[in-house]
Amino acid sequence: MEFAGTIELVRSVVKAVKIAGKRVGLVPTMGALHAGHISLIKRAVKDCHFVVVSIFVNPTQFGAGEDFENYPRPIEADLEICEKAGADLVFNPSAEVMYGGEGLTWITVEKLTEPLCGRSRPGHFRGVATICAKLFNIVQPDVAYFGQKDAQQAIVIRRMVADLDMPLEVVVCPTVREPDGLALSSRNKYLSVEQRREAAKIYKSLAKCKEMREAGVTDAKQIIAAMREILRQIAGGQIEYVEIVDAETLEQVNEIKGSILGAVAVRLGPARLIDNILL
Amino acid sequence: MEFAGTIELVRSVVKAVKIAGKRVGLVPTMGALHAGHISLIKRAVKDCHFVVVSIFVNPTQFGAGEDFENYPRPIEADLEICEKAGADLVFNPSAEVMYGGEGLTWITVEKLTEPLCGRSRPGHFRGVATICAKLFNIVQPDVAYFGQKDAQQAIVIRRMVADLDMPLEVVVCPTVREPDGLALSSRNKYLSVEQRREAAKIYKSLAKCKEMREAGVTDAKQIIAAMREILRQIAGGQIEYVEIVDAETLEQVNEIKGSILGAVAVRLGPARLIDNILL
Repeated sequence: MEFAGTIELVRSVVKAVKIAGKRVGLVPTMGALHAGHISLIKRAVKDCHFVVVSIFVNPTQFGAGEDFENYPRPIEADLEICEKAGADLVFNPSAEVMYGGEGLTWITVEKLTEPLCGRSRPGHFRGVATICAKLFNIVQPDVAYFGQKDAQQAIVIRRMVADLDMPLEVVVCPTVREPDGLALSSRNKYLSVEQRREAAKIYKSLAKCKEMREAGVTDAKQIIAAMREILRQIAGGQIEYVEIVDAETLEQVNEIKGSILGAVAVRLGPARLIDNILL
Repeated sequence: MEFAGTIELVRSVVKAVKIAGKRVGLVPTMGALHAGHISLIKRAVKDCHFVVVSIFVNPTQFGAGEDFENYPRPIEADLEICEKAGADLVFNPSAEVMYGGEGLTWITVEKLTEPLCGRSRPGHFRGVATICAKLFNIVQPDVAYFGQKDAQQAIVIRRMVADLDMPLEVVVCPTVREPDGLALSSRNKYLSVEQRREAAKIYKSLAKCKEMREAGVTDAKQIIAAMREILRQIAGGQIEYVEIVDAETLEQVNEIKGSILGAVAVRLGPARLIDNILL
């Protein structure tokens, strides 16, 4: 496995790979890698000849008072995970490399970034879209891999790629869960033993959503009420949102017909946890 | 010379060219090609193995009440000009091809888009940046060519390319002028014979700027006053702005030290004419 800290090095390595006609996959991450990331890397290894994992805790997607400073950065462990999972190149740039000058250019995706996490994290998706565009332009992958756990992010990136005619494919991989259903997240590390146990109720609420939908309930309000009831039982938890939205437009749905996304955000101690189910 | 109306066709042609290791140049235009555009194409032909000219009157860079509908579209003549100038491929997509769905994604460049033309054309540079990014992503050129006549546009695009790490070089070519100094512009076609004659005073004001600067005048206000005096003599003209700004940041300059841009916009009959001089 190779390692690059500069844009020039990534470009020269990838250029040689592409001239050889090889398919290049990119897994953009903020590090603190877990089984969810590993599943993305393994999927990329399966699909592509050459897999790049980027590790960069992107300051522009954190708001004031969020956990940018405290976000875990276990780079040694991350590199080992990348190597074991079969990555060919890790790109781990400094903030100076990624945002050397005064960045004046931003990519915004309208509408899709307004509901759900967009409401409590203004500027978050602008930061995500912009850093992803930069990584796409640096690595020039044929495919980029994202997790379904960050459903809104995946939809925003997919839309940006389509709207700007970016020459790559976006693949969204299933959420990886703990045995009790909790979605893997680098932020789970923030939880105490007690909070970690309580956090399993987030998935219980999504399972309830699925169960009711499959039982034929079409009234979104009724399902949301049942989900809320479960989430209210999280000791020390604070519900940020519980929504049922159209799986493509992310607009709120009243009467369920097509594909929907049941999406939840809960604050629990120092962590803000999100999860979703696609039905 | 080849012709493409679809993204797929451009991509497949350029892909073959790039696999052969050839350098690809892009000249993005809105058509109504004149000697200014020809100079860009010829420069690209000199620098590159394969030159793509895009011809697309981009609706998203026109504001309400602007000349989108009336903008000249002499496609037959344009194709002949491209062929003669040595272009290898013309990309002339429909609006449907470029903006098929509901475009939700926009690229904005802060600060640099606020002064000069940004003040009277809100959203213009957002449209320009977004369409250029799309064209860059479709054609994937090694170099893109812009004219110094649209100085602010060139600076905005250069900045976007740098900030988003787009894998291409931006080359800005000198303004081409009529014998009386008028900068070539597709919008000169809007002028009556009388207005066309008056329009030469725009360049006279820029020549005055140069003359005073070279004579050692460092007070921007004094130069602007002299330029205004010339521009006020344009019969039927209306000055939109006369400014002396820093050539990189586009911030207003009081005491001239480094590189400056003298920039002018004048409304004359149905035309809005801009011009500038880099000192």
